[in-house]
Amino acid sequence: MPSHTPLVTRATDAARSAAPGLAALTPAERGTLLRALSDVLRENTDDLVALADEETHLGDPRLRGEVLRTRAQLEMFAEIAEEGAHFDVMIDRADAAAVPAPRPDVRRMLVPLGPVAVFTASNFPFAFSVLGGDTASALAAGCPVVVKAHEGHPRLTDLTAALAAEVLPPGALRVVHGRDAGRALVTDPAVQAVGFTGSTTGGRALFDLACGRPDPIPFYGELGSLNPVVVTPAALAARGPALVNEYVASVTRSQGQLCTKPGLLFLPDGHGLGELLGLAVGAAVPAPLLGPWIGDTYRATLDELAAHPTVHRLAPAPADTGRAATPADSPSATLLTVTAHDLRTHPELLRECFGPASVVVTYISTEDLLATLRELPGSLTASVHGQEGDGELSRRIWSSLRAGRLIWNDWPTGVAVTRAMHHGGPWPATTSPLHTSVGSTAVARWLRPVAYQNMPEALLPAPLRTANPWRVPQRTGR
Amino acid sequence: MPSHTPLVTRATDAARSAAPGLAALTPAERGTLLRALSDVLRENTDDLVALADEETHLGDPRLRGEVLRTRAQLEMFAEIAEEGAHFDVMIDRADAAAVPAPRPDVRRMLVPLGPVAVFTASNFPFAFSVLGGDTASALAAGCPVVVKAHEGHPRLTDLTAALAAEVLPPGALRVVHGRDAGRALVTDPAVQAVGFTGSTTGGRALFDLACGRPDPIPFYGELGSLNPVVVTPAALAARGPALVNEYVASVTRSQGQLCTKPGLLFLPDGHGLGELLGLAVGAAVPAPLLGPWIGDTYRATLDELAAHPTVHRLAPAPADTGRAATPADSPSATLLTVTAHDLRTHPELLRECFGPASVVVTYISTEDLLATLRELPGSLTASVHGQEGDGELSRRIWSSLRAGRLIWNDWPTGVAVTRAMHHGGPWPATTSPLHTSVGSTAVARWLRPVAYQNMPEALLPAPLRTANPWRVPQRTGR
Repeated sequence: MPSHTPLVTRATDAARSAAPGLAALTPAERGTLLRALSDVLRENTDDLVALADEETHLGDPRLRGEVLRTRAQLEMFAEIAEEGAHFDVMIDRADAAAVPAPRPDVRRMLVPLGPVAVFTASNFPFAFSVLGGDTASALAAGCPVVVKAHEGHPRLTDLTAALAAEVLPPGALRVVHGRDAGRALVTDPAVQAVGFTGSTTGGRALFDLACGRPDPIPFYGELGSLNPVVVTPAALAARGPALVNEYVASVTRSQGQLCTKPGLLFLPDGHGLGELLGLAVGAAVPAPLLGPWIGDTYRATLDELAAHPTVHRLAPAPADTGRAATPADSPSATLLTVTAHDLRTHPELLRECFGPASVVVTYISTEDLLATLRELPGSLTASVHGQEGDGELSRRIWSSLRAGRLIWNDWPTGVAVTRAMHHGGPWPATTSPLHTSVGSTAVARWLRPVAYQNMPEALLPAPLRTANPWRVPQRTGR
Repeated sequence: MPSHTPLVTRATDAARSAAPGLAALTPAERGTLLRALSDVLRENTDDLVALADEETHLGDPRLRGEVLRTRAQLEMFAEIAEEGAHFDVMIDRADAAAVPAPRPDVRRMLVPLGPVAVFTASNFPFAFSVLGGDTASALAAGCPVVVKAHEGHPRLTDLTAALAAEVLPPGALRVVHGRDAGRALVTDPAVQAVGFTGSTTGGRALFDLACGRPDPIPFYGELGSLNPVVVTPAALAARGPALVNEYVASVTRSQGQLCTKPGLLFLPDGHGLGELLGLAVGAAVPAPLLGPWIGDTYRATLDELAAHPTVHRLAPAPADTGRAATPADSPSATLLTVTAHDLRTHPELLRECFGPASVVVTYISTEDLLATLRELPGSLTASVHGQEGDGELSRRIWSSLRAGRLIWNDWPTGVAVTRAMHHGGPWPATTSPLHTSVGSTAVARWLRPVAYQNMPEALLPAPLRTANPWRVPQRTGR
């Protein structure tokens, strides 16, 4: 059980007090609030990026891009709140002739769940942090947020929250620090749902706490993924060398610290790309990892995978490892290799290695490939690089695995912030395959339906009124 | 751990084999299949109702009405499958000018989760059983179903399943019997989600099994509810006697064996309706309960509530209980009474008593009423009987509690089978406040999103194609 955590109780009490006011905001008011948060990020970009770089080592260009992305997210959810589509209004008029019984007037809309907890990620100090997609979508839904800060960027978290507090109603957004506080948050009676981005181990432990409450609550955990990428024989023949460079760029982007990093590249056996892969890896510039909690796990996982009797080091080549050595906190990229047969017969190899490493898996036939794909755990993404004529093969590949995003001739890293984006997938990619933490439907995680029966116009909430004062989309049933 | 259950494995293997075929059906084909199930019920109504009455004692008129309702449900989900709105298609075209980065073409739709398990209810041998709403919505989604039969109507379950098998693809619908089989089903690796209607105890045990799997799966449990009904002082003055008769009719409908039965009626103190309540209860005709598993729990719960020092028996009056005695399997209706203050200070009284009993709660002021409503657990429904001028009071009542359906001047029993209906609510009404087991959105429980990135038209599933061959609703983002 969590230890005594008065700061958590103060935060959730404040959130509970703020909930009715946030829920009552008009669509325009919610939009204004989210746009104000985007403005806060714009006005303070220099200070925020400087502090973020100190704490995360992700570098100025990446961090400035991430601020832009985070602002785009806030503005997308502002638009969604303003349009009111998230109310998901459905209206059935009374029908005295209905079978098997006369029907009353029934109108349904979504209402906020109440205070929610958001556990932020280390690898996106803006886009999946205090004002990231979880917070933006929860505020769009009308839910107060208590953020569990990631220990990787505590000062940035506090600065962002302090700036946000200047434009938010009291209690709408609070921050707590520390693992005990995180556990206390998940079991706090005021908290009605949890968003989490992080490791499988940490996410599963908190998921179990959420499910084990006397009153279980939804837990939306994004836990990471192997993100298989398949190169077809035709694509290998047509553009193998180009794919090598794209692959290594995707693996080393943000030092491999992305949950969409391609962890497995399936190449036809005898691909002949070993030397090019080695050159590409050698050309990649090492950079510091986010912190020791990443580095320690990264090296331990990589060492275990590399020591497996079926696994070989592909790049840097074993002879080069001395030369290519870099400081412990700035590891150079590493590629391992294994056959498809060995991968599917050794499930202990099916582990995410968070950092600049990936495994090249060689397959000898379509059946060998598909048999291995069928053994993969659920992923956030699954990609195919193919040529015209690979349509049937691609369909067989995608139907052999389970993933939240299927990609053709493109790479999984660099998740587009767009309404239709789905960032989720079957376990262990997430704890909730129905939901996404990116894209417009992320707001649905924080809402529950309520039906209003036989209600006069004056008693109906604004979105359900026939007069439709907020001009929200209303579907009418039959 | 579940004991050896080869029948479960045979059923889930068959479901796994059937899944790709069901998922590939066109909207028209899914509609045809669901309409064929409605036809099966129509053609065999006499046989089915006769068997159902033997096993449930619910009576011919109610059971024929329930068959009509179940057919209406199947036909509603046929329409939904045919329209294709459940694919929830969203399309974002590529945008080279997007901030912070160019965007690829991203198209999102919902796909079936795979085989699902459905635990049927004792009190609706058609509408929440083999071909009930859970099965109809899962088949509309494209998911095979393995039904855990309720022990209350095993022969009806087998007959219905046998008739359905004549029109369904092999493996699309199987039935298993027994508690061990139920537990094995929830932990079977093939099963991807569970629908459940039943008791809080049974539902919670299975929910814990689903969450505790190595790969947790969604569990949609509808567990019952207290369904508070508030009569305002103005409504009492205007139509107290009429409300008495409506209330007792709602409490005794189907012998009180409805999860929407009003378990708590809040009346102003000094309501003066005691005698009328006694007469109405005395006039209600006792009928057999569904079976001993209901009767035993009903009597035990009622006895415990009635023995509580703060609770008094209102009807039949204590002196009449001898005269009003009915056979043990056909209990007469019983009303208890307690003050609002005592109810909120004795949470052990906040228990559903499944059967023909209800508690009249007297309140002395608006504050007394609201303070008590704030202590109620989540409910499926919450009703207010009021007059013009009670608008502000009603809003305060509804904002003091949490329920899935809010009702004005109507009763919670007799759930309308309509698209906008929400049959759900916060814990302990259900295990998943975001979802419903009645209404068009029930289908969403069995679907998960998939995004398709940078996909040529030929590789896209039909609902996502620009040519839109199935003519499904497509939303285009900005």
